Amino acid sequence: MLNTHIRFEHDADRLMLLDQRYLPCREDWYEVRDLATTVYALQEMVIRGAPAIGVTAAYGCYFCARETLRETDGLLPWAESLRARLDTLRNARPTAVNLRWAVELLESMWAERPGIGLPALATVWLDKAKAMQREDEETNKAMGAHGANLLADGDRVMTHCNAGALATAGWGTAVGVIYSAVEQGKKITVVANETRPFLQGARLTAYELDKCGVDVTVACDNACALLMKKGLVDKVVVGADRIAANGDAANKIGTYGVALLAKAHGIPFYVAAPSSTFDLRCATGEQIPIEERTPREVTHPTGESSITPVGVKVYNFAFDVTPAELIAGIITEKGVLTPPYTESIAKVIGQKR
Amino acid sequence: MLNTHIRFEHDADRLMLLDQRYLPCREDWYEVRDLATTVYALQEMVIRGAPAIGVTAAYGCYFCARETLRETDGLLPWAESLRARLDTLRNARPTAVNLRWAVELLESMWAERPGIGLPALATVWLDKAKAMQREDEETNKAMGAHGANLLADGDRVMTHCNAGALATAGWGTAVGVIYSAVEQGKKITVVANETRPFLQGARLTAYELDKCGVDVTVACDNACALLMKKGLVDKVVVGADRIAANGDAANKIGTYGVALLAKAHGIPFYVAAPSSTFDLRCATGEQIPIEERTPREVTHPTGESSITPVGVKVYNFAFDVTPAELIAGIITEKGVLTPPYTESIAKVIGQKR
Repeated sequence: MLNTHIRFEHDADRLMLLDQRYLPCREDWYEVRDLATTVYALQEMVIRGAPAIGVTAAYGCYFCARETLRETDGLLPWAESLRARLDTLRNARPTAVNLRWAVELLESMWAERPGIGLPALATVWLDKAKAMQREDEETNKAMGAHGANLLADGDRVMTHCNAGALATAGWGTAVGVIYSAVEQGKKITVVANETRPFLQGARLTAYELDKCGVDVTVACDNACALLMKKGLVDKVVVGADRIAANGDAANKIGTYGVALLAKAHGIPFYVAAPSSTFDLRCATGEQIPIEERTPREVTHPTGESSITPVGVKVYNFAFDVTPAELIAGIITEKGVLTPPYTESIAKVIGQKR
Repeated sequence: MLNTHIRFEHDADRLMLLDQRYLPCREDWYEVRDLATTVYALQEMVIRGAPAIGVTAAYGCYFCARETLRETDGLLPWAESLRARLDTLRNARPTAVNLRWAVELLESMWAERPGIGLPALATVWLDKAKAMQREDEETNKAMGAHGANLLADGDRVMTHCNAGALATAGWGTAVGVIYSAVEQGKKITVVANETRPFLQGARLTAYELDKCGVDVTVACDNACALLMKKGLVDKVVVGADRIAANGDAANKIGTYGVALLAKAHGIPFYVAAPSSTFDLRCATGEQIPIEERTPREVTHPTGESSITPVGVKVYNFAFDVTPAELIAGIITEKGVLTPPYTESIAKVIGQKR
């Protein structure tokens, strides 16, 4: 629903990224035209969200090929030079699984084409980057269509963090479900939890929903219980970072609390995530590690002054795990999975692995 | 436990207030020496918290008398001039019940002394202000002693907002319970929820506990459920702004959610508040109005840049109500009340009214 924040411009031979560092205050576009600018965009969080990082990395491979072509004129031996560039790209963010995965996928396309010339390889990679971008959006739209059937006209939907267009190649996962329901003609209003410490709900979810004309209200995370008690929330839809074989779902810190409060108020709680999010090597959520991040995210909410005394200790767990029994349904591009999840996940997702 | 943040200095004839606007980054003292500086301190939130406001207002009456004495030399007719000053003071913060209550209490002492001279009245009021400050701290220490018996050596206690020394004349209510347990020789560690939007937990509770050498860790409000699940919280103790006859307790936004999450994890949840907090005209929490405050508190967490798109709607309910059935005990200066609250409140608190 949001015009894509990842735009390849043919005439200018460049990738334009909506710079998420300055949202929602400024809509700056960042120009990616070579390896250095691709690495900068990834490292400095011009773009974030696993699917969005993967697509950007694929375009990055194309820019590596273009840059190598300019350097060698396509005549000098170019393979070593290109390989070095891909290594730099691959290591831009060591912990981003999708970055490494995308670079390796495109490398394998090169390996499958022995003797291919550099201009032809650049074209193959550019086409693949565009295809990946398109496919991610299509997956999200399929997910959205399944999920939208769970939302009724007039529903007030709470979401947490940003599982929206800005985290993906387009449309989004949890927020994509809302866009699909709106497209079906349903009137949906949204409560966006601000999502401390990084405030992705206040900054990004509110930005993209507002931009698309969807009625959105921001609330502090701790208002959740009162809003539910006041009857201001009909359903909750959130994304997921990893889902275990039994349906336990890891997502941004605070999600588990929202799920418990939803249960206490009799409000259905849904998770929306593509099948690639399921990690069947994890039997339960117990096996999903919880990352701890820098205290500075907590102590400096806007990057300016500190809100805590100097040196005071801080808990900053980045994720939590919502037990499967609190989840009314898991929305995927293949349909909506329902309890018992161990069976539904094995049946719908399991065959892939 | 915190050296008082409200200090009357005889030699200089002034009231020094620890300026809460700049905590925890700077420890500035604000000098109150006349009506204008008293009004400024109240309006600009140099000091906040109902008991602390009441005590400051009592000192303010003394400064009104002093100022009138300087103006009239005690010889000219002074009653009208003093009355005008008291009106200005009374209206400094129209919604602060304790401000009006304190000014009217001191006015009644004047009314009871027909023919009293202005210098004598100033002395009566200064003595009363000091007595009120002392009595508030004594009430809090009595409450702390009762509450401390509920805490065990080694307990990890979660608290929300700032019900500490800084909100009262000294010692605090919920945080006072922690100070009393520490004074009993128990090792207590504290999780201070940051308490969006105004961040009193991160700013003030962390500041005063740290200052007193109590081990404190700050967490974003939405980490509450995970911290409880990880076994990092043994008990919850919070303050209250108003308690109904059935035990339903209004407190800072987020308290109700903490209480529900505590119940889900089998963690006892206590409220600490002086008997003056009970409002027996409210049969249940349903009768307690929930104030909505300016969106700016949500959109500008540190008063600097905005975290939301311009014009996006915001929920900013300042309080919520925790139903009595979620409360394991209500700690007062008269003892710990336990369910059924309708009976225990009527018995221990009810006679007063």
